[in-house]
Amino acid sequence: MAESAVPLLSSLKTIVGEANVLTEDADVAPYVTDWRNAFHGRARAVVRPGTTAEVAAVVRTCAEHRAPIVPQGGNTSLCGGATPHANGSEIVLSLARLARVRAVDAANATLTVEAGVPLARVQQAADEAGLFFPLSLAAEGSCTIGGNLSTNAGGTAVLRFGNARDLVIGLEVVLADGRVWEGLKGLRKDNTGYDLKQLFVGSEGTLGIITAAVLKLFPKPRVSATALAALADVDAAVALLSQLKQALGDRLTGFELISHHALDLTRAAFPAFADPLPGHPWYALVQADDASDGSPLAAQLEAALGAAVESGTARDATIAQSAAQAEALWSLREHIPEAQRREGHNIKHDISLAVSRIPAFLREAQVRLDAAAPGLRYMVFGHLGDGNLHYNLRPPVNVALEVFRRDTARLNRIVYDLVTEMGGSFSAEHGIGQLKREALTHYKAEVEIDLMRRIKRALDPGSLLNPGKVV
Amino acid sequence: MAESAVPLLSSLKTIVGEANVLTEDADVAPYVTDWRNAFHGRARAVVRPGTTAEVAAVVRTCAEHRAPIVPQGGNTSLCGGATPHANGSEIVLSLARLARVRAVDAANATLTVEAGVPLARVQQAADEAGLFFPLSLAAEGSCTIGGNLSTNAGGTAVLRFGNARDLVIGLEVVLADGRVWEGLKGLRKDNTGYDLKQLFVGSEGTLGIITAAVLKLFPKPRVSATALAALADVDAAVALLSQLKQALGDRLTGFELISHHALDLTRAAFPAFADPLPGHPWYALVQADDASDGSPLAAQLEAALGAAVESGTARDATIAQSAAQAEALWSLREHIPEAQRREGHNIKHDISLAVSRIPAFLREAQVRLDAAAPGLRYMVFGHLGDGNLHYNLRPPVNVALEVFRRDTARLNRIVYDLVTEMGGSFSAEHGIGQLKREALTHYKAEVEIDLMRRIKRALDPGSLLNPGKVV
Repeated sequence: MAESAVPLLSSLKTIVGEANVLTEDADVAPYVTDWRNAFHGRARAVVRPGTTAEVAAVVRTCAEHRAPIVPQGGNTSLCGGATPHANGSEIVLSLARLARVRAVDAANATLTVEAGVPLARVQQAADEAGLFFPLSLAAEGSCTIGGNLSTNAGGTAVLRFGNARDLVIGLEVVLADGRVWEGLKGLRKDNTGYDLKQLFVGSEGTLGIITAAVLKLFPKPRVSATALAALADVDAAVALLSQLKQALGDRLTGFELISHHALDLTRAAFPAFADPLPGHPWYALVQADDASDGSPLAAQLEAALGAAVESGTARDATIAQSAAQAEALWSLREHIPEAQRREGHNIKHDISLAVSRIPAFLREAQVRLDAAAPGLRYMVFGHLGDGNLHYNLRPPVNVALEVFRRDTARLNRIVYDLVTEMGGSFSAEHGIGQLKREALTHYKAEVEIDLMRRIKRALDPGSLLNPGKVV
Repeated sequence: MAESAVPLLSSLKTIVGEANVLTEDADVAPYVTDWRNAFHGRARAVVRPGTTAEVAAVVRTCAEHRAPIVPQGGNTSLCGGATPHANGSEIVLSLARLARVRAVDAANATLTVEAGVPLARVQQAADEAGLFFPLSLAAEGSCTIGGNLSTNAGGTAVLRFGNARDLVIGLEVVLADGRVWEGLKGLRKDNTGYDLKQLFVGSEGTLGIITAAVLKLFPKPRVSATALAALADVDAAVALLSQLKQALGDRLTGFELISHHALDLTRAAFPAFADPLPGHPWYALVQADDASDGSPLAAQLEAALGAAVESGTARDATIAQSAAQAEALWSLREHIPEAQRREGHNIKHDISLAVSRIPAFLREAQVRLDAAAPGLRYMVFGHLGDGNLHYNLRPPVNVALEVFRRDTARLNRIVYDLVTEMGGSFSAEHGIGQLKREALTHYKAEVEIDLMRRIKRALDPGSLLNPGKVV
């Protein structure tokens, strides 16, 4: 270890207290591996500051020692964005102790929270203020709002409320030199210069460290309706999406596409789930919410689905008759990833396209993949309303997982090539991290990579913030 | 004129054709003065490219000649953002001929348009596709979508749909060196690197020249309701806003605050307007829209306003009984700026605060201003739902306009000091341009200005794009 190690660590201990500088292997271990256990790094230390001032002092000290920093929230990245590299030179900066709800302003419909507040607690704080924070995703119990913002998390309500970046109107950020940008005004309109906050949102800690945010809150949903529709093909799903948007307007909050393969695998892994509409190739899980009491929402959804069945867009449909039934439908959807995980390795793609191009993509992708790997099994599901598919591949029945795993790069290339040809994205909501850095270099236009590098150099000239991630 | 003038202009003529390089005073005049006639500049030439490739070639050529460029759309900036400086060294680059609607994708609910398309034509193209583009503002007949995006325009539907930046999911931008960034994928989710588009949106042409955009479309409003509520004070307006959000959810699309002074002045200038609810100090103009047929929206709005009158939040309320009545209410609101213009000079402030702080701001501002300039008359109106006020000052009755005009800087300072103390913005929707550059330097935190300058240097190292604007 370099000579500067001792003075750096003792400086850090002076800032955050001895107990908050972890160096023992057992203490450090949870911070240097991602939760999918796909990335394994090492760290010089894990530092856990408790305030923004401490974060700033830690960054300043690291900058003086030229020690690179890996910011980390709930450590739930799916792309290794929060995992340090293997060389052990980095400091993991955990935001977990910045966990205060700083302010609730119901009249302004905003919430000011620190980066380390878990998403579920943000939702709860909004609820206690009589309002609603719509960001929702599988990891919400453990992921933090700082991580959600720095990765621009998506989730199940993007169709109506947008991605994480659409839910933030202010940020506090510690910059690469330890200065603090205080941008927490909570204004819905502010045209005094460049929009700095959107630069930090989604940059995965490579441009600055988000320490707090002002979040937009919304009226609480008062009436909800959930339905499952059975569909002949994905063209029908796209048509149904348009019809439901026309019928329900903005109250259509979720539209999830599920293939029968995904449903079958999930029901096989969790036999307690009922099969709501057996025997169809595709399904759409539809969620609608209305913030006004006494809304005829369920009747409107029922009428729209009835018309869709009548006109042949949908084959069949069922509306949840109780909160428990609605929850069972969503639970089925949310257990798909776990069902996949239990089965062992599969090759995941988190892609997006213009919604209108999804059917053509699925047809062409299958033609190319079937030719390249006969017998491949497809697990397709995702947020069709946002053009975002989890396009996952299972091995042919007679191919061992280990053999299949070795085929990852080749199959990725086929999928990403087609996505790119069709104007789509090879990372819709999971980000880049370490996992997709090569894809970024390969598929992004040179001019875009150049712009990103110029911005990186402008804001972090010493390349101290999460180096080797994103760009 | 410098020696390079002749070769530059002939190069430009080669690119765009002789007819599209204007140099005669009479031809140039409309491009070098803003529409409020507050800024007067000169230009070496006005260049009117017809395609993105021509824009790129023009920028490349200007870069070679180190000739600064002022991009211009409909020339409706309220801050001199599109007006060249007086030294005559700049090339005005008009985007007006880039006026094609490139693509309509109803299933993806997106529209791809070139920068020079007037906002009203964007709205119309959306309408023809059976969808809705919500950006709406007074200048919509002449302003262009490129200008709307580069200034992050606000308007009357921000409460529900956000600012211009919230309505764009893709951009095509010509960079300072003439390269083209093609970011027109039209994806609702794309986490492959930094969000470059939001950097260009709102940067007033100082970082790049927007040549085309992919815009988000929404379901068309099918049912609308418009009402005017009479209020005792602004605290009541804030309370009513919260109550209506609870009652109507996202279907509350507009909530405009109007003081009786603003109403009186407008009715004096345009006597044809009726006085819908005479004799109250404050009013709120309320707009609600629902995209689903057969929505009970009007009944819900009536019930909510009835409850507000019952509980004392509102003094009185009237709901428009016809489209004509609704239009008359909006027309009254929209004639306020023209009524002010006819009266002659007033001192305008386009400020924003957290909605919850607006009443305290108005009280304190009046105390300070009354002390500084006894007899001052207040013209307050604006988008309360967004925390955005047009806080305008008329001279005391016995003070001549010319004398009052000389007091501008002193009164601005009082208003902006208080806005800053209360965590607000001195430019909510109009931007910086030339007009508010000094305020920016004075009121912005040093760290924020430093970040902006670093980004400007990174993207436009030669300072060729709209120099002397914003930062």
